[in-house]
Amino acid sequence: MRDLSGRPDLCSVNTATLGFREPLSSLIDAVARAGFGGLSPWRREVEGQDIKAIARQLRDAQLVVPGYCRSTYFPAAGRPHFLSNVDDNKRAISDAAVLGAESFVLVVGSIVPPHTDLAQARGMVREGIGLLLDHARQQGVKLALEPLHPVYACDRSCITTVREALDLCHALDPGNDVLGVLLDVYHIWWDPALAASIAAARGRITGFHVNDWLLPTRDVLNDRGMMGDGVIDIRSIRSMAEDAGFDGLVEVEIFSTETWWKRPVAEILDVIKQRLAHAA
Amino acid sequence: MRDLSGRPDLCSVNTATLGFREPLSSLIDAVARAGFGGLSPWRREVEGQDIKAIARQLRDAQLVVPGYCRSTYFPAAGRPHFLSNVDDNKRAISDAAVLGAESFVLVVGSIVPPHTDLAQARGMVREGIGLLLDHARQQGVKLALEPLHPVYACDRSCITTVREALDLCHALDPGNDVLGVLLDVYHIWWDPALAASIAAARGRITGFHVNDWLLPTRDVLNDRGMMGDGVIDIRSIRSMAEDAGFDGLVEVEIFSTETWWKRPVAEILDVIKQRLAHAA
Repeated sequence: MRDLSGRPDLCSVNTATLGFREPLSSLIDAVARAGFGGLSPWRREVEGQDIKAIARQLRDAQLVVPGYCRSTYFPAAGRPHFLSNVDDNKRAISDAAVLGAESFVLVVGSIVPPHTDLAQARGMVREGIGLLLDHARQQGVKLALEPLHPVYACDRSCITTVREALDLCHALDPGNDVLGVLLDVYHIWWDPALAASIAAARGRITGFHVNDWLLPTRDVLNDRGMMGDGVIDIRSIRSMAEDAGFDGLVEVEIFSTETWWKRPVAEILDVIKQRLAHAA
Repeated sequence: MRDLSGRPDLCSVNTATLGFREPLSSLIDAVARAGFGGLSPWRREVEGQDIKAIARQLRDAQLVVPGYCRSTYFPAAGRPHFLSNVDDNKRAISDAAVLGAESFVLVVGSIVPPHTDLAQARGMVREGIGLLLDHARQQGVKLALEPLHPVYACDRSCITTVREALDLCHALDPGNDVLGVLLDVYHIWWDPALAASIAAARGRITGFHVNDWLLPTRDVLNDRGMMGDGVIDIRSIRSMAEDAGFDGLVEVEIFSTETWWKRPVAEILDVIKQRLAHAA
């Protein structure tokens, strides 16, 4: 397993960690200055901006872009809305290509009450991803399917386990040239089948996110922890991923409205570097 | 699949649904008067009381007791505390026998920070359940192992899927004479492997709990929904369980501090009867 001590160049910062308080150009400067190897931005920071200029700044700063975040949810109340969601994602994939992103992150959505149930949502997600594959191939952007914690099964993602995401990869992209799985320890740490599922994901791991599960967790969406502050055995999970061939950047993604998002960006980046060395 | 319309006798009320506001003896009367077939009480209502008298009242009311709720968590910071938890559960199993309960419900606990991690917790749970088997056999009480939703993986249960619970049953009780799985739709509805896991649980399903997952859920512990108010396809899951041989009482268990626990007991029981007919 790689030693991350003093190696922020092996790590990436997802801008969600920094609270969306400063313009992307400032964050690119700050993350590069701190020595990180990559930065993953969100559409809210990119769309409507000069994307080529952002891409140039990222290249000049020698920052890799592991993942462009993230897809519009696929499930919808009707066919036109569903197809519009697919088109929206195609446009975002084109933007990801301009940015030079290695992947476009798929958070897939789930039930749209009262119109769809879990089985329908899964069907729409499967079809929706299928409709993106050729465009992603043409654009040279991988699709990084992220299973979310089952606490979000009703609204944010009907795909909840690594195994389920992997089964979808095998079904939709048997040649393994465009669709992979993004592992985020927050979403997968509890899974009794985790070791076997990650081993089975060899060659399909398109991203690896670290953070921590706090005890107690005040809010499952926005009270995620800094590595080392919670109960997740991050090193053990990273070891599984690297044993399965993952050699990409280790990315920090922490939604924390009440704690980290209130700290200065430079301080957050400092703490991340310490924690990557000791707790990830 | 059984039709529950007008058949509260096929159903049981878990007293947690009624908010722990009235003495157990009143609840037994109310539940029997409403025509239900069973009632599952909690230790807080039983311990320190005249358990034989409670058992007599339940028998006189012709109420089955599907499950006595619930175990003390197994994982502990040290060996003495762990063994004390096991002993505590043995005493509760003896009480379950006096009550005439068909099973004692196992909610197993999880990480005890900073002393244990998930793997350790799982080990203690496995050992702890193993230490209860002979006593439960002697007392004629089944153990109903309840996997909880992964949102509780850090604190309430390191056992999070039907498959994981079933694997533990097979390992600890290969003869299948004492250890089974309790299915609660709230905890398992999201699972992509649910159909296969329930089919594989044939002969091991010792209980079936219904309620609903609300969207939005304000509190994952105490904002559980009445059947029909949320997103769970309860009938589909009950059909899987009955196809796998489950023919016990369908039990309603709803933790709802801010909604149902504020309604009169008689009203809650009325609504349950309507919803069992139409949404479960």
